[in-house]
Amino acid sequence: MRSFTALSELSLKEVDDLLTLAKRLQERPEPRALEGKVLGLVFLNPSLRTQMSFQAAMLRLGGGSFVVSPDRGIHQLETRSGVVMNGDAVEHVREAIPVMASYGHALGIRAFALRQSLDEDLADRNFRALAALSPVPVINMESAIQHPCQSLADWKTMDELSIPRGSSKFVLSWAYHPKPLPLAVAASTLQMAAQRGMDVTVARPDGFELPATIMEGARKAASSSGGTVQETNDIREALDGAHILYAKSWSATSCYGDDDADHELRSGLVDWRVEASWFEDSSKDCRFMHCLPVRRGVVVTEDVLEGPRSIVLQQANNRMWVQMALLHRIMSPKREEA
Amino acid sequence: MRSFTALSELSLKEVDDLLTLAKRLQERPEPRALEGKVLGLVFLNPSLRTQMSFQAAMLRLGGGSFVVSPDRGIHQLETRSGVVMNGDAVEHVREAIPVMASYGHALGIRAFALRQSLDEDLADRNFRALAALSPVPVINMESAIQHPCQSLADWKTMDELSIPRGSSKFVLSWAYHPKPLPLAVAASTLQMAAQRGMDVTVARPDGFELPATIMEGARKAASSSGGTVQETNDIREALDGAHILYAKSWSATSCYGDDDADHELRSGLVDWRVEASWFEDSSKDCRFMHCLPVRRGVVVTEDVLEGPRSIVLQQANNRMWVQMALLHRIMSPKREEA
Amino acid sequence: MRSFTALSELSLKEVDDLLTLAKRLQERPEPRALEGKVLGLVFLNPSLRTQMSFQAAMLRLGGGSFVVSPDRGIHQLETRSGVVMNGDAVEHVREAIPVMASYGHALGIRAFALRQSLDEDLADRNFRALAALSPVPVINMESAIQHPCQSLADWKTMDELSIPRGSSKFVLSWAYHPKPLPLAVAASTLQMAAQRGMDVTVARPDGFELPATIMEGARKAASSSGGTVQETNDIREALDGAHILYAKSWSATSCYGDDDADHELRSGLVDWRVEASWFEDSSKDCRFMHCLPVRRGVVVTEDVLEGPRSIVLQQANNRMWVQMALLHRIMSPKREEA
Repeated sequence: MRSFTALSELSLKEVDDLLTLAKRLQERPEPRALEGKVLGLVFLNPSLRTQMSFQAAMLRLGGGSFVVSPDRGIHQLETRSGVVMNGDAVEHVREAIPVMASYGHALGIRAFALRQSLDEDLADRNFRALAALSPVPVINMESAIQHPCQSLADWKTMDELSIPRGSSKFVLSWAYHPKPLPLAVAASTLQMAAQRGMDVTVARPDGFELPATIMEGARKAASSSGGTVQETNDIREALDGAHILYAKSWSATSCYGDDDADHELRSGLVDWRVEASWFEDSSKDCRFMHCLPVRRGVVVTEDVLEGPRSIVLQQANNRMWVQMALLHRIMSPKREEA
Repeated sequence: MRSFTALSELSLKEVDDLLTLAKRLQERPEPRALEGKVLGLVFLNPSLRTQMSFQAAMLRLGGGSFVVSPDRGIHQLETRSGVVMNGDAVEHVREAIPVMASYGHALGIRAFALRQSLDEDLADRNFRALAALSPVPVINMESAIQHPCQSLADWKTMDELSIPRGSSKFVLSWAYHPKPLPLAVAASTLQMAAQRGMDVTVARPDGFELPATIMEGARKAASSSGGTVQETNDIREALDGAHILYAKSWSATSCYGDDDADHELRSGLVDWRVEASWFEDSSKDCRFMHCLPVRRGVVVTEDVLEGPRSIVLQQANNRMWVQMALLHRIMSPKREEA
Repeated sequence: MRSFTALSELSLKEVDDLLTLAKRLQERPEPRALEGKVLGLVFLNPSLRTQMSFQAAMLRLGGGSFVVSPDRGIHQLETRSGVVMNGDAVEHVREAIPVMASYGHALGIRAFALRQSLDEDLADRNFRALAALSPVPVINMESAIQHPCQSLADWKTMDELSIPRGSSKFVLSWAYHPKPLPLAVAASTLQMAAQRGMDVTVARPDGFELPATIMEGARKAASSSGGTVQETNDIREALDGAHILYAKSWSATSCYGDDDADHELRSGLVDWRVEASWFEDSSKDCRFMHCLPVRRGVVVTEDVLEGPRSIVLQQANNRMWVQMALLHRIMSPKREEA
């Protein structure tokens, strides 16, 4: 195993092997597995869970990490090609990334969508350009259109709670949020649920449809795994018989990158907020998932978020265990085979 | 041993055991004692000594730590209950704390006084609310009213210098500072000296009395330990025969939270600054203590701070050793018993 | 070996021993060599390579580090003597440095030139004052006039590429940059090339001469090593027969500290930029070196920087290996002798 940049790269067997390894590390610590091993972590955007869970993951395996983020006493980085650097930026990522990567045995990169062009973001152009500069394996810590570590953690969480892989209903719902957020978690989550063989419904208001390439990718994954993919603008209908409600806000794709138009479109949707009344008899045991951070009273009401159907803390904790498995695979292949 | 949030939680024997362990680790390194162990460090306020000494403590024992602070590329955190989060904060501590705590084997928390209500600060409401969210043992890295790691380090420092536990005079003196500082170090230091069996005098200007509950707690500790507790507004009288002068500035408790009134009250007290002339024949060997950081020429003159009676660097260094003992106890109980 | 603050402290044999050790660690990892060992890293100025390469170096040897920098949630530090601290700074380096140093087994310090007085910067007064406060060995992570870790890495890089130590031509060239940069890398590089026995030419515009003490120090080193030192304002002439072109911008020494005069002097020199046409038949195999970060299109054109003659990434990667050797020597002397 070298880089890990999208869940779709993994076969069902590879996912199962990773989750089995994650469980083993959870039960039987290996505090020397990665001794002397180093993970570089480059954040071009803020992070809480990702930064801390990767640091903890390396430490628990006996290795360590270093963190690069623009607010940590480093120079401003230039990312554009062919530019004459006579402004504020004193270093180009074309030197910074290969140099930092060369100090470690793998490199995690976070680079959110630039939200200037939907096509460029769907192609994950920015992240791919950065990843291509690394001489060591790269881990995607959330790019324009992928958040595969989150999806692995979510998969593990559903396995632990015995949510069936087949014949189970997974609802990915848009939710109101004051800002136009990236598509990465929505796209990754849809792909994950389809790959897991679930019957997936995407519930979103008109104007917030997920891009066709994302829906098609999920349908293709579902056709291999025995799952299905549907979409609707009716959240009540979507929740009928649901095992999982995964809430996430995202940008209006009908006016991608146009914040004013997006704002106008979402301004009438403040009531698209997960609340207790959404869950009826047919979905009374439905679990609530969210990748965090989440705005209380905006995306979801406090009683749902803190109530028994919420499994958000377990999802977040599982970030560490699946990342330990990933790092173990990437940095310690021989031990793994033994 | 689970959490450590106040020195008053510990019996004299428990303090002695910790200090003995600290000394042992100082003399005989145990670089594998905490291998694979992780300490989370959450700072809601700035830190120098605390942040570095906890990181160093874990490393010297073969473990590691991760640091969360609001200036380190993380989202802004909400702490209020029942609020609709449609402002700047994107995450609530009710998710952030349990998630971060779950990545480690213990969690250090720093949360200074909010200085809105004396009763709430005396009850350490803010810190306790955060600590209650952690599924792993919590270490108090300074709260509204406690700084127990500092007090353990101070105790160790006096032991090393053979300052007697009984029949020795400890003066805790207020000192001028341009800002209204928290009560935590003053309250903790008073409690520590009383618990150590010393004859404690609190010297402070009128209007800067320590709260009655703090004084009563210290008197109760003194009555068990064989010490005494007094207070005065006359620093010359207080220093008569003193073994230790511990200087620390704090807010005016007579107008707590009212910065204008506090400013007016302290504006006439710029001369309440530790200087060489304070020490007379009866206190000629008196040691000078301070928790640092300290403003030179404001709280204490440079000649006293850098002179032979100052033991501030030893205090600061001892932070690391007592914290190593604490972390060893919390994270490696079996080794300890062996 | 205790502190490491300048390359001139090392004999040729000591340099060779360090580079041999660096190579050994590169080929045969020693992930337990520094277990339980701690390196403190204090940055008074920004850093990318230095911060990350030192962290990675400690981790690869089984130890760890902590980072102090003014933007990392610490108090503002006072550096002046005899000042009454009633302003923003809440702590003096005279406490901060010895305390932080005491938490580790060695202390790295970065303190750039203050650029107020050429004499003070040439004497490295600021760095030396800070270093003198440390009770543990100090490593110079770039001071006003030295960057010895960079120079060691550059030496290693030239060895790896079989650039002869004697009878080879090394050109250190000034280059245009919009800001008046410190002299440290230029001075260190000149010293290193002279110590390595090379025929060194310093090419710089009039007004940008390196200070006489720097030139004299290099000439003295050259006379021991068999090298030579010359200077010129004609870069074409300098490059005739060159094996290495090392580009670096620096302040105008003829008006040191006067930014307006410096600006005027350099404003006509924007064309002093390394470009492909500089290299002719006699220098067709000449390598391009730079310590990074480098401004593309300003200091050097993109085609040279990314072309086959550029060895800047190798230089940057070698920072880690030479620092591992240094740390190994400083913290693990017994193992080294064994």
